[in-house]
Amino acid sequence: MSIRVPFDTVKETVKKALLCAGLSQEQAETCAAIHTQSSADGVESHGLNRIPRFVEYIQKGWINLEGRPVKAGGFGAVENYDGQMGIGIINALFATDRAMELAKEHGIGCVALRNTTHWMRGGTYAWRMAEAGFVGISWINGESCMPMWGSDQMGVGNNPICMAVPREDGEIVLDMAMSQYAYGKLGVYRLAGKKLPYPGGFDKDGNLTSDPGAIEETMRILPTGYWKGSGMAICLDLMAAVLANGNTGIDQNAALRGSCGGSCQIFIAFNPYLFATREEVQAKLNRRVAAADATHPDREGGKVTCPGERTKVTRARSMKEGVAVDETIWSQICSIAEGNLDVKDIASF
Amino acid sequence: MSIRVPFDTVKETVKKALLCAGLSQEQAETCAAIHTQSSADGVESHGLNRIPRFVEYIQKGWINLEGRPVKAGGFGAVENYDGQMGIGIINALFATDRAMELAKEHGIGCVALRNTTHWMRGGTYAWRMAEAGFVGISWINGESCMPMWGSDQMGVGNNPICMAVPREDGEIVLDMAMSQYAYGKLGVYRLAGKKLPYPGGFDKDGNLTSDPGAIEETMRILPTGYWKGSGMAICLDLMAAVLANGNTGIDQNAALRGSCGGSCQIFIAFNPYLFATREEVQAKLNRRVAAADATHPDREGGKVTCPGERTKVTRARSMKEGVAVDETIWSQICSIAEGNLDVKDIASF
Repeated sequence: MSIRVPFDTVKETVKKALLCAGLSQEQAETCAAIHTQSSADGVESHGLNRIPRFVEYIQKGWINLEGRPVKAGGFGAVENYDGQMGIGIINALFATDRAMELAKEHGIGCVALRNTTHWMRGGTYAWRMAEAGFVGISWINGESCMPMWGSDQMGVGNNPICMAVPREDGEIVLDMAMSQYAYGKLGVYRLAGKKLPYPGGFDKDGNLTSDPGAIEETMRILPTGYWKGSGMAICLDLMAAVLANGNTGIDQNAALRGSCGGSCQIFIAFNPYLFATREEVQAKLNRRVAAADATHPDREGGKVTCPGERTKVTRARSMKEGVAVDETIWSQICSIAEGNLDVKDIASF
Repeated sequence: MSIRVPFDTVKETVKKALLCAGLSQEQAETCAAIHTQSSADGVESHGLNRIPRFVEYIQKGWINLEGRPVKAGGFGAVENYDGQMGIGIINALFATDRAMELAKEHGIGCVALRNTTHWMRGGTYAWRMAEAGFVGISWINGESCMPMWGSDQMGVGNNPICMAVPREDGEIVLDMAMSQYAYGKLGVYRLAGKKLPYPGGFDKDGNLTSDPGAIEETMRILPTGYWKGSGMAICLDLMAAVLANGNTGIDQNAALRGSCGGSCQIFIAFNPYLFATREEVQAKLNRRVAAADATHPDREGGKVTCPGERTKVTRARSMKEGVAVDETIWSQICSIAEGNLDVKDIASF
């Protein structure tokens, strides 16, 4: 069951919970704002639902609250930072901002971060770039949680890639994991007693299935586009580990520090106004997006949209009516905020 | 029916055909080498199969044989070129090489090309970067040839993205279009009287189908991963048009200069040895690829591979046994090489 809670109440409660978990005022303020925004944008799986697990990771010592991005190297438009296993959100925000600084100086900027922890919602950083007026690409490599195409054994991370387009009349932002459905989504469908709209993995007999429970059992989630998502996932892993001089997915498997513990993250920002004026660029973006959105829907009452457009609608509703939060998760967070850190991670992703 | 013809014979014949079509010695030599390599690598659809259409485009004036990449602007690690509607392969090779030069100077290099024509096999440029020792990302925006998710009307290009990993024991290269199957692939299955392995589009009643003919009829090819490939395709279009200060997909629709006529192409090269030695990087790549390839296959006799590994096997076989070419296409190319330019484009993509 979902309830709606005012944005500021959510944020203040999450902040209290994070202070109880040992974060500094500044860390708690930043992380609470990001987690609340993720839920407000409709990405609950990596918003509030992640708080109990985040607290658990801190207690296990998998996140180093003293960790800060330390410059490990730099050359021209590229910089490399060691995240010291610090808070994923804080490290990733730093890297995003630094990539944009480099882009101001060099036209393009790339920050490659290693030894960092889960960045939570990948789209956070792409939205930040788009809102600041930059085109952007970012991705992460994680531990093996998806079989590669042709395999029935975990072989590669579900490495999301994000893309940012700074359209001022509505940012266009892609936040795309490499599996067709997230584990969290499977649980949502199973609990609702529903089948997935399209096959999302393999059952124990090795057949493609839309039964979420059967996929949870085998953990054989389907790469998006079958062989395609599998191929992109391994490329993103290799590129991230090389560019950041950090861990590959299998190095993370071996280290056992939770999801994306010790991962690499890449942030590339481009100045979109090098060769055309802001007005020209914005007019072009508006024209193209309008044309896409105007294509004929495949069903009565349907509406074609570009990535990010629905997020803005969800965001506006959350600001007006409150942020939708799962009741159980909310009571857990309230409990943490009262100092009870011994909370079980009930969300599965 | 496919026959095998020695690589050098194929290349010389294609070169003769291209000379007949009006290319200079140097242009014909370069394009013949690339088209032949694409077929030798198993990408016939964008190798030899494209020659008749390429010749047709020249005759229609859609490709300007005098067109050269002209620098339109530059800032730091980014350069912008106008391709003057020149030969797509020649323009794209120039841009690839220039991106690598910029990466040597700035750690990362980005060349954004506008007003260019079809680059043929997208992987050509990623392979070139990987073989030259660079990590790379490249993509193109094309005219609308695929419905966006939720639409039954052409709305976005099938914009491929390519990724390059310079592993010396076998480059890892992804060349991924945004539809689940290329149009060319549908034709191949239809002619063989086969169903697609997985649904590849919608039939006239709006149902997902694996019947290639039914999809060719509606032209409603399926974005890879349903909404995911659709979202990425529009983002790639927007980013390419902005970064290159060039045409979006809909601008190309309006101009009617064939597939990818007036498109934008982005080439990003990264120096992978900024923060670690070549030995360290190569050891890491080998370890990660070996682990991926060693994951348990989902069927008896199966083999898990990373993108590009099978290409190398196909390439080796082509060099030994000859390049596999479609008999009808081959006779067309031989006919063009004898000066008969009035050849019908029989390959559908």
